[in-house]
Amino acid sequence: MCEKREPLPRFRVCLRLPILGNLSLNYSHNNDTVPQPTLVLASRSPRRQNLLRQIGLQFVCIPSTVEEVIAETVPPIEHVSILAERKARDVATGCTHAIVVGADTIVVLEGEIIEKPVDAEDAVRMLRRLSGERHEVYTGYSLVEVPSGRVLTRHVRTEVWFRQLDSDEILAYVKSGSPMDKAGAYGIQDDFGAVFVRRIVGDFYNVMGLPLCDFYCAYRQFTNQKHEGCNGFELA
Amino acid sequence: MCEKREPLPRFRVCLRLPILGNLSLNYSHNNDTVPQPTLVLASRSPRRQNLLRQIGLQFVCIPSTVEEVIAETVPPIEHVSILAERKARDVATGCTHAIVVGADTIVVLEGEIIEKPVDAEDAVRMLRRLSGERHEVYTGYSLVEVPSGRVLTRHVRTEVWFRQLDSDEILAYVKSGSPMDKAGAYGIQDDFGAVFVRRIVGDFYNVMGLPLCDFYCAYRQFTNQKHEGCNGFELA
Repeated sequence: MCEKREPLPRFRVCLRLPILGNLSLNYSHNNDTVPQPTLVLASRSPRRQNLLRQIGLQFVCIPSTVEEVIAETVPPIEHVSILAERKARDVATGCTHAIVVGADTIVVLEGEIIEKPVDAEDAVRMLRRLSGERHEVYTGYSLVEVPSGRVLTRHVRTEVWFRQLDSDEILAYVKSGSPMDKAGAYGIQDDFGAVFVRRIVGDFYNVMGLPLCDFYCAYRQFTNQKHEGCNGFELA
Repeated sequence: MCEKREPLPRFRVCLRLPILGNLSLNYSHNNDTVPQPTLVLASRSPRRQNLLRQIGLQFVCIPSTVEEVIAETVPPIEHVSILAERKARDVATGCTHAIVVGADTIVVLEGEIIEKPVDAEDAVRMLRRLSGERHEVYTGYSLVEVPSGRVLTRHVRTEVWFRQLDSDEILAYVKSGSPMDKAGAYGIQDDFGAVFVRRIVGDFYNVMGLPLCDFYCAYRQFTNQKHEGCNGFELA
């Protein structure tokens, strides 16, 4: 479903699937029944796909082809927000009636942005740096609606403390291949990742790649679903 | 594998399975190869079974039959420690060569211990109380080795903040049946649970029922596996 796309496809299709789910995230507008837009996830991350499924959303997956690079140096919040929105807008250009979700996750250690490792050595280096230290994880996500052009972009920050890591477990984890597609070279939901992290402050799912509680409230507001439960949650 | 046992079985069997896994949690003692004890989980919680599997452990599951009740009022830490150890000891009495893991998880709101709901109304009442508030989750776990009689019991505390909940989502969640076997009437890994929790401080897996990072280090030390990574981790 999320195979790598050919570069620059000319005819990108947005299948129209109903947005359903246990959580009743049905689309409505001013209490009228309206055609449901397709929910599109502009990410090939299997974690994000699982997270959207976990909260009962049905969606199609169309990874964006934008480069995950920002030329200028910007603060972490801007970094993830810019990339999340860029990914969502990229995929949205090929859709006629959809809500497109883009997201970007980074690890920040001592002010330095750490993205995905380029190779196994890079992954070992990253994990050695994270060992015994506190770092931050930022996820930005963006909702882009077409054809209206409405956009909502938000970010969430979680602090993560690693225990001291053993060389053997770092090497075994990297050898498993799991760190290679993950910011900071670890997944908190992995076998090793779970036993590396001794403490977090914030949303666990944000570390996995999408802050579910924040996203859920944002999505409900974005789709005009009245919800007392998200009172106090204010869109930026 | 974890069906409800008949009360007080006379001939409880501990199958001898090797303890294997990606995390190399192999049993060794003074660097000699010794017969591997069976790892036994004295719990019928599917969450705990999944968590042990996540970190690569193989085990057999023999739920204890002890009542999850403590006559006297004790602080949360003692409550979970006493019950975890009681469960592990109960199952250990039927084993000849094993490490038995017992665990107990409670929610504490304003000093009051909240366990599993007794019925749907109780679950609704619990979730209404947790709505918009901060509470604590304590998990106690106990490792009991037979025939040596060695015991290690520990506990971990996580703080959890719920956002304001909507009546409809509380009712829908309770109707799903999912809250009924869970302390505090929620699972942080559920569809609804994931979007109810806006922030935690501590270990996420502790809220699910077993603090994986702490447990992993304790288990390695308990089984005499040298491990630099868990330095600074001191057994009580």
